[in-house]
Amino acid sequence: METERPNSTLPSPFSPRTSVEQVEEGLALAPKFDADGLIPCVTTDAKTGDVLMLGYMNSEALAKTIATGEAHYWSRSRNCLWRKGATSGLIQDVEELRIDDDQDSVWLRVSVAGSGGSCHVGYRSCFYRSVELRGSSDEPPRLEFTEPQKTFDPKLVDGDAPNPTQL
Amino acid sequence: METERPNSTLPSPFSPRTSVEQVEEGLALAPKFDADGLIPCVTTDAKTGDVLMLGYMNSEALAKTIATGEAHYWSRSRNCLWRKGATSGLIQDVEELRIDDDQDSVWLRVSVAGSGGSCHVGYRSCFYRSVELRGSSDEPPRLEFTEPQKTFDPKLVDGDAPNPTQL
Repeated sequence: METERPNSTLPSPFSPRTSVEQVEEGLALAPKFDADGLIPCVTTDAKTGDVLMLGYMNSEALAKTIATGEAHYWSRSRNCLWRKGATSGLIQDVEELRIDDDQDSVWLRVSVAGSGGSCHVGYRSCFYRSVELRGSSDEPPRLEFTEPQKTFDPKLVDGDAPNPTQL
Repeated sequence: METERPNSTLPSPFSPRTSVEQVEEGLALAPKFDADGLIPCVTTDAKTGDVLMLGYMNSEALAKTIATGEAHYWSRSRNCLWRKGATSGLIQDVEELRIDDDQDSVWLRVSVAGSGGSCHVGYRSCFYRSVELRGSSDEPPRLEFTEPQKTFDPKLVDGDAPNPTQL
């Protein structure tokens, strides 16, 4: 069976989008995937509220996350379904999953197994640098590291997996 | 002067992306905008850590947010620069701005003026519904409202502005 959704060979388990009122005020999950078949997902630490990462899900990743309670994403660099922590053991256990008003973004509140890291560089959060605000307009904005050290050595955990950062 | 970036007529105030190491471990802000010239932005409540919204910025919106300390986005529905709260008064004062490992996502920690709402439907957060996890696979996932009531009446605050939700 096939659907119109890219990156998926399964029929959609979600409700169709029939009206603005249904999408914004209804009780049916009717997510909007973009032209690539993806929906962005903010993942936060359930205890601290810190943003750990911003990932993307296709229909299958969202359905698997809901069915299993473990975070699944679509890896844009590797172009495959990605059960977070499958290689590293740093599984994200989902405590709550929310959808936004127009149902085109997902928010996961998770607790992370093992060292608690969610970032391929080795930090706990992918957002380990802050940007100087209201600086001089003559110079490019500068960054400051906010996490004192990495939680794991990515070479030991991820092995020979290719670096997902693309220029 | 023109740059390659869509939706902007200003030269980029950001650093070029020269290597994976520079992007991930460096101190220069070198954001990656997508094919539409946009970068996704997670905005959280600086006090509670709750995710308020997921928006998008073009180069100009990011530069103005950094320069002014007030959140600016690119409105995809209205196709224009959007100083959040310009109409409603619900300004987002940025306490911290972070960039992620590969510099293709932004995180804002904000405090919101007025009633504290950030959602055009009237709720405090756009993520006012949670999705039932690990439910029966025979039925579509159901939603539950997590905020007891709206913080403002969007008809009074936004006036005749078109609803940004698109089917």
